[in-house]
Amino acid sequence: MKLLRNTWYAAAWSRDVGADLSTRELLGEPMLLYRKHDGAPVAMIDRCPHRFAPLSMGKRVGDGIECGYHGLQFDCSGACSKNPHGDGRIPPGARVRSFPAEDRHGLVWIWPGEPSRADASLIPDFSHLVSPGLKTVGDEMTQKAHYELVVDNLMDLSHVNYLHAPYQQVDDFLQAKHDVVQDGSALESRRTVAGTRAPQSFRPFLDDPDAPVDYWLNIRWHAPGCCLLETGVVPAGRPREQGLVRIGTHIVTPIGAASTQYLYASSRNYRLDDPDADDETVRWQQMGFHEQDKPMIEGVQTRMGERELFSMRPVLLATDAAAIRARRLLAAMIDAEARSDQPVPAAIA
Amino acid sequence: MKLLRNTWYAAAWSRDVGADLSTRELLGEPMLLYRKHDGAPVAMIDRCPHRFAPLSMGKRVGDGIECGYHGLQFDCSGACSKNPHGDGRIPPGARVRSFPAEDRHGLVWIWPGEPSRADASLIPDFSHLVSPGLKTVGDEMTQKAHYELVVDNLMDLSHVNYLHAPYQQVDDFLQAKHDVVQDGSALESRRTVAGTRAPQSFRPFLDDPDAPVDYWLNIRWHAPGCCLLETGVVPAGRPREQGLVRIGTHIVTPIGAASTQYLYASSRNYRLDDPDADDETVRWQQMGFHEQDKPMIEGVQTRMGERELFSMRPVLLATDAAAIRARRLLAAMIDAEARSDQPVPAAIA
Amino acid sequence: MKLLRNTWYAAAWSRDVGADLSTRELLGEPMLLYRKHDGAPVAMIDRCPHRFAPLSMGKRVGDGIECGYHGLQFDCSGACSKNPHGDGRIPPGARVRSFPAEDRHGLVWIWPGEPSRADASLIPDFSHLVSPGLKTVGDEMTQKAHYELVVDNLMDLSHVNYLHAPYQQVDDFLQAKHDVVQDGSALESRRTVAGTRAPQSFRPFLDDPDAPVDYWLNIRWHAPGCCLLETGVVPAGRPREQGLVRIGTHIVTPIGAASTQYLYASSRNYRLDDPDADDETVRWQQMGFHEQDKPMIEGVQTRMGERELFSMRPVLLATDAAAIRARRLLAAMIDAEARSDQPVPAAIA
Ligand code: FES
Ligand code: FES
Ligand code: FES
Repeated sequence: MKLLRNTWYAAAWSRDVGADLSTRELLGEPMLLYRKHDGAPVAMIDRCPHRFAPLSMGKRVGDGIECGYHGLQFDCSGACSKNPHGDGRIPPGARVRSFPAEDRHGLVWIWPGEPSRADASLIPDFSHLVSPGLKTVGDEMTQKAHYELVVDNLMDLSHVNYLHAPYQQVDDFLQAKHDVVQDGSALESRRTVAGTRAPQSFRPFLDDPDAPVDYWLNIRWHAPGCCLLETGVVPAGRPREQGLVRIGTHIVTPIGAASTQYLYASSRNYRLDDPDADDETVRWQQMGFHEQDKPMIEGVQTRMGERELFSMRPVLLATDAAAIRARRLLAAMIDAEARSDQPVPAAIA
Repeated sequence: MKLLRNTWYAAAWSRDVGADLSTRELLGEPMLLYRKHDGAPVAMIDRCPHRFAPLSMGKRVGDGIECGYHGLQFDCSGACSKNPHGDGRIPPGARVRSFPAEDRHGLVWIWPGEPSRADASLIPDFSHLVSPGLKTVGDEMTQKAHYELVVDNLMDLSHVNYLHAPYQQVDDFLQAKHDVVQDGSALESRRTVAGTRAPQSFRPFLDDPDAPVDYWLNIRWHAPGCCLLETGVVPAGRPREQGLVRIGTHIVTPIGAASTQYLYASSRNYRLDDPDADDETVRWQQMGFHEQDKPMIEGVQTRMGERELFSMRPVLLATDAAAIRARRLLAAMIDAEARSDQPVPAAIA
Repeated sequence: MKLLRNTWYAAAWSRDVGADLSTRELLGEPMLLYRKHDGAPVAMIDRCPHRFAPLSMGKRVGDGIECGYHGLQFDCSGACSKNPHGDGRIPPGARVRSFPAEDRHGLVWIWPGEPSRADASLIPDFSHLVSPGLKTVGDEMTQKAHYELVVDNLMDLSHVNYLHAPYQQVDDFLQAKHDVVQDGSALESRRTVAGTRAPQSFRPFLDDPDAPVDYWLNIRWHAPGCCLLETGVVPAGRPREQGLVRIGTHIVTPIGAASTQYLYASSRNYRLDDPDADDETVRWQQMGFHEQDKPMIEGVQTRMGERELFSMRPVLLATDAAAIRARRLLAAMIDAEARSDQPVPAAIA
């Protein structure tokens, strides 16, 4: 699995990383996650350099860990801090690979690339997740598919009119104005339908569900797998600021070649304290992501087997523009990284 | 998996293919099966040429289908008939591979070879399945084994005296007269025992179960995996026309390298309307095929692993004659097909 | 899987091999095990040379077996003794590979190497298992790990202070006197702690559990996978003969590359007829072997994947001395065997 290394990946929702040792497979590696006493997240390979025991089977000792097999201790940087055997000298090489880790916007982020380049300001902006003006509801799931197939699903939102019909379907959506815009290494696909029927997913929250609305659906992709989806409706002709808006968070992190961690959330700007609106979101996420997207994406993976997309010569459509551009941009970034020791430039023309 | 391509394979019992989209793995491919409004069967690869979604997750539109992911439509020949995106032009190459398909004798047959050579008259004769003079009872199962191991089982019927004893055992069967006869690309193995005790499977249906009978057991193989087995008993010395006869249908279609679809039935010329005789058949198929043949054939597959039969240098016995000849004939047909673009000759000397 | 061939492997506890055909995967092969009428054990490949049916699906005929598929018979040496087909001649090559097998000390041993070299006196001494002065309690389990990882676990007993704490933990154990001694092709690791607190596992059986004891823990390895572990406590300063002693039997036999058969037992020299002491042992074996060792060893296998230990450059500690020496000794024995047709010398310097 060729991966972009010098970038931030979301390892978990912040709320799911605590003082106790936890482990999850990420980026093809077993990843040990926990928090120091000051709350800072720690990420390292979940494998002792002695006899390769899972460190997650050991225990916390201070801010470090003790291997549960023969008791080597490591500090939170991964350096061996105690050898209980023989003369107690620390053997050279007794070190666990750790990763720069950051808590940001309700997510724990890890950097698998060159540690000195790990700049927290490069973490994509998901500040809406912690905005007091929005109510956020989310969870996570595993997709048994290559992470780029999950990104493809997000970057080609025409699928909402088929896979998610009738709940998310929008009349005239497939012929709507559609722009694909590159912004540095990010890519945005924007669709607008003026004066249409509000989709079912917004109707319960509109004063007059049958009045025509202007509808928009923008998705912003930040390499390699962070997507931010904005959907909104506003009475036709009124400014967007007055509309009902949902910001979708869709962050995929590769687990292995055909397995992806998918963190998702929806943040709405209306009925912030309404548990019924929360329930509506949970129901949609269950139906849309678990019962519609997941079987379809995993079905595609089954049909592709171990083949790479372009080697199968897909028939490309107008609606593929953003997804294909994202794939090409990512491939170029991975190639550039492989060819040089230079930091990947922020923008790839 | 090397397969004979210019031949008919049974895809399913006709009764199991209806107007709704269904899918099954056959010949190493996901196969979409359904019927047009006029009842004609349709078979195509269950994979959209756009982003490779399973078409079986979509829906019927007229005699064609609509992909459930982004809505491309295909007619029943596999040609794209509608593109709902952008300017709506049909992209070149937007075509699903379809297969000639025929309903014949209660089975749906598909032709994975050159379509222009698909001649329905080449479908082997299983007309007994729909003969009003016979009562047929059958079903299907999956064998986790290479299809040639299932054919071997059928072509060496000496196993009935061991694996299916005592129900199907026949005294003196292993020393019985045994002819192997080639008929074009078909092969027939014929065994006869004169004046023997009727096997248990026939005894409930004989006037005098203890009177000596003439017994015969013929199996006819039609490449690559269609077998027709005729078993009969008649009071010793009387013409076969007066006997009790069962025609067994045993049709195997490769799913993958170690997985086989096995369609089976038994058609009898006695007690046509007797539900007890039906039950007796169902019980035997359950015991003989599911509880005796299947574990043995799958046990052989386990013991062979991924090795090819001849590479393991099997010790061959007199009773192997038909099975080995069928294997050699099939290998020659596959080789001939690989070497030329000419149609495979009907008879291979 | 490279294996030492000219050596004895434990196939099963003697009590688990009877007159009926049984089969288990061992040494990468399906192994048929049963006993002749005189009680002698028989071991052969569980695969008929005709069409590769599992012989274990057949039946006993005298001291031999009849294949359940087409009825070939084999004597207990594996030679074909009857061909029921055609003229009945025994085809050359109709032979099943059998293995020298011996019943010794409550275990059935098999020799996968050159049969003429199978000398029962080379079976390692596990006579304590049948000693009337000891009470033995044991069982078996499968470890989903390479057998050398299970041997590593046994040969580095420092793990008892971590993985098996507090039940087996011994104060000052990691700094205890530790000798590793080679004795021919066997290796012994001996640890002694004078005047310490008795570990919890012995306390219920001591007159004064709080009095200081001398403690010892010796493990003897006999290539490739037979370990004998002696643990004892005696009131400080008294001779070992007066102590409480447990002899642990730990015998691993490779099943496949990441799967190991593990036979274990504990033989104690105290409270021979006390069912509570038996229960205490069973509880410890369940907790220690099944709930502590097994997840850890299988966790290590998961973290190593298909990689070989040294290729991963483990950080070695003082406590690794015996385990690493055993690995090197075994590798040298396997290499020597591969390089020559000469018997492997009893001692490898
Ligand atoms: S494996 Fe961690 S200390 Fe041995
Ligand atoms: S995958 Fe079928 S239309 Fe996109
Ligand atoms: S497989 Fe054993 S006799 Fe045929």
